[in-house]
Amino acid sequence: MKIVIIGSGNVGWHLGNALYEQGIHVEQVYSRQRAKAEALAQAIKTDYTTHLQDVMPGADLYILAVSDDAIKAVSIKLRRRINIHSDKKLEPLVVHTSGATPSTVLRSYFKNYGVFYPLQTFSMRKAVEFNTLPICVDSTNIANLDTLFRLAQSLSQEVYRINDDERKILHVAAVFVNNFTNYFYTIADDILQQEGIDFDILFPLIQETINKIYDHPPKMMQTGPAVRDDEKTIGEHLNYLGKYPDYQKVYDLITQNIRKS
Amino acid sequence: MKIVIIGSGNVGWHLGNALYEQGIHVEQVYSRQRAKAEALAQAIKTDYTTHLQDVMPGADLYILAVSDDAIKAVSIKLRRRINIHSDKKLEPLVVHTSGATPSTVLRSYFKNYGVFYPLQTFSMRKAVEFNTLPICVDSTNIANLDTLFRLAQSLSQEVYRINDDERKILHVAAVFVNNFTNYFYTIADDILQQEGIDFDILFPLIQETINKIYDHPPKMMQTGPAVRDDEKTIGEHLNYLGKYPDYQKVYDLITQNIRKS
Repeated sequence: MKIVIIGSGNVGWHLGNALYEQGIHVEQVYSRQRAKAEALAQAIKTDYTTHLQDVMPGADLYILAVSDDAIKAVSIKLRRRINIHSDKKLEPLVVHTSGATPSTVLRSYFKNYGVFYPLQTFSMRKAVEFNTLPICVDSTNIANLDTLFRLAQSLSQEVYRINDDERKILHVAAVFVNNFTNYFYTIADDILQQEGIDFDILFPLIQETINKIYDHPPKMMQTGPAVRDDEKTIGEHLNYLGKYPDYQKVYDLITQNIRKS
Repeated sequence: MKIVIIGSGNVGWHLGNALYEQGIHVEQVYSRQRAKAEALAQAIKTDYTTHLQDVMPGADLYILAVSDDAIKAVSIKLRRRINIHSDKKLEPLVVHTSGATPSTVLRSYFKNYGVFYPLQTFSMRKAVEFNTLPICVDSTNIANLDTLFRLAQSLSQEVYRINDDERKILHVAAVFVNNFTNYFYTIADDILQQEGIDFDILFPLIQETINKIYDHPPKMMQTGPAVRDDEKTIGEHLNYLGKYPDYQKVYDLITQNIRKS
């Protein structure tokens, strides 16, 4: 199977490297930014281009690892490029890697389309364990779905068929457990820094918070002043947070919600 | 050193077991609830009582591992009991284990008082690694502080002197990174359950969220629709959350805060 990766950002980089590590050759990578395209191409020993019109036609699978709002524009240009390939029976499969974008965005441009969504937070300089990383695939066509399943399974033990509606909800859930918890880490880091206390002191607590939910439903693991209706402590905390009005508002709302639930 | 643990809840249980594992004998444990007192006493091979008036006098250290709002009432009764011991020069050291309570609460009752606060979330049935667990100690008296440091260091490599003000702020930070993130896990679990998706699919993402902040300031690791001002995705998420008004409010507020920051 001939694979081309469009995009050399966080997802493209890590996906490309994961394929390479499994001995799956990527034919070409694309990025607008030469440095990124070149770095990825070098890392996985392949060619690169910085122009969509130079993306190779005739591949079996194009993986659009681009930002959500670039998917349409890239699709239009890629469509033109694919048309150069004469054999209409061999229309390639085109997938995007987005949690927030329905697969149907691709339908206007490609006969064979789908989604290849690795449910993970990627950062450039941080290696990611693919073996246990959930990969959510989907396609309206069974043969395409099968192709995506097999490719995903060569990277990870955790492969799921997740449709557009489900993926959207999964993405909302991911925002809560990743983006929003990270914001709470930021708040903690900020208020501790003001007092000269090192944020690291919270690491064992942060890790244990997770360890608990591996075995128990999070609702059962809820502790703290809010769930035990400890108004005295809540009042003191809100009072202390008076100097951080944005944090105070968050504390107040989350506490109300926990007390209600 | 003769140690008595007052309280056999989560903290008393785990602290007692941790001391036992280090070969430090606890003379007696107390709990109002016979089953709890008995379980802990059996686990760490010691005696127990369910009556504060039967707590042994003449110990060197009493650890009050009771709920915040019980600290005063327990102190009053314990004071009476300690008075039975005739030698006024050997006033015992009395500490509480609370993050939210100033050490000064104990000042009215005991000449020697302090805090022994393990910064962790404890649950009854879940073993806890004490070796790396931050223990925050404090006392106004240098000799007492030294006693607490040595005891804490026999359990953990991470021992800090943290005063009342600092401990209060640390407790606020702990509420954000533990209680409030756990609430986000609860939200994610809830919305996924409604759609028949298993919460477990988020574990690799949840773990990676933490892995990232071991090496980088959380603010630098912020990803997601809010930080990239992706109004389309934010709008879709808020729209989807319309059926969960409490969650929608949280999503909206946190997103506003992240965009501001």
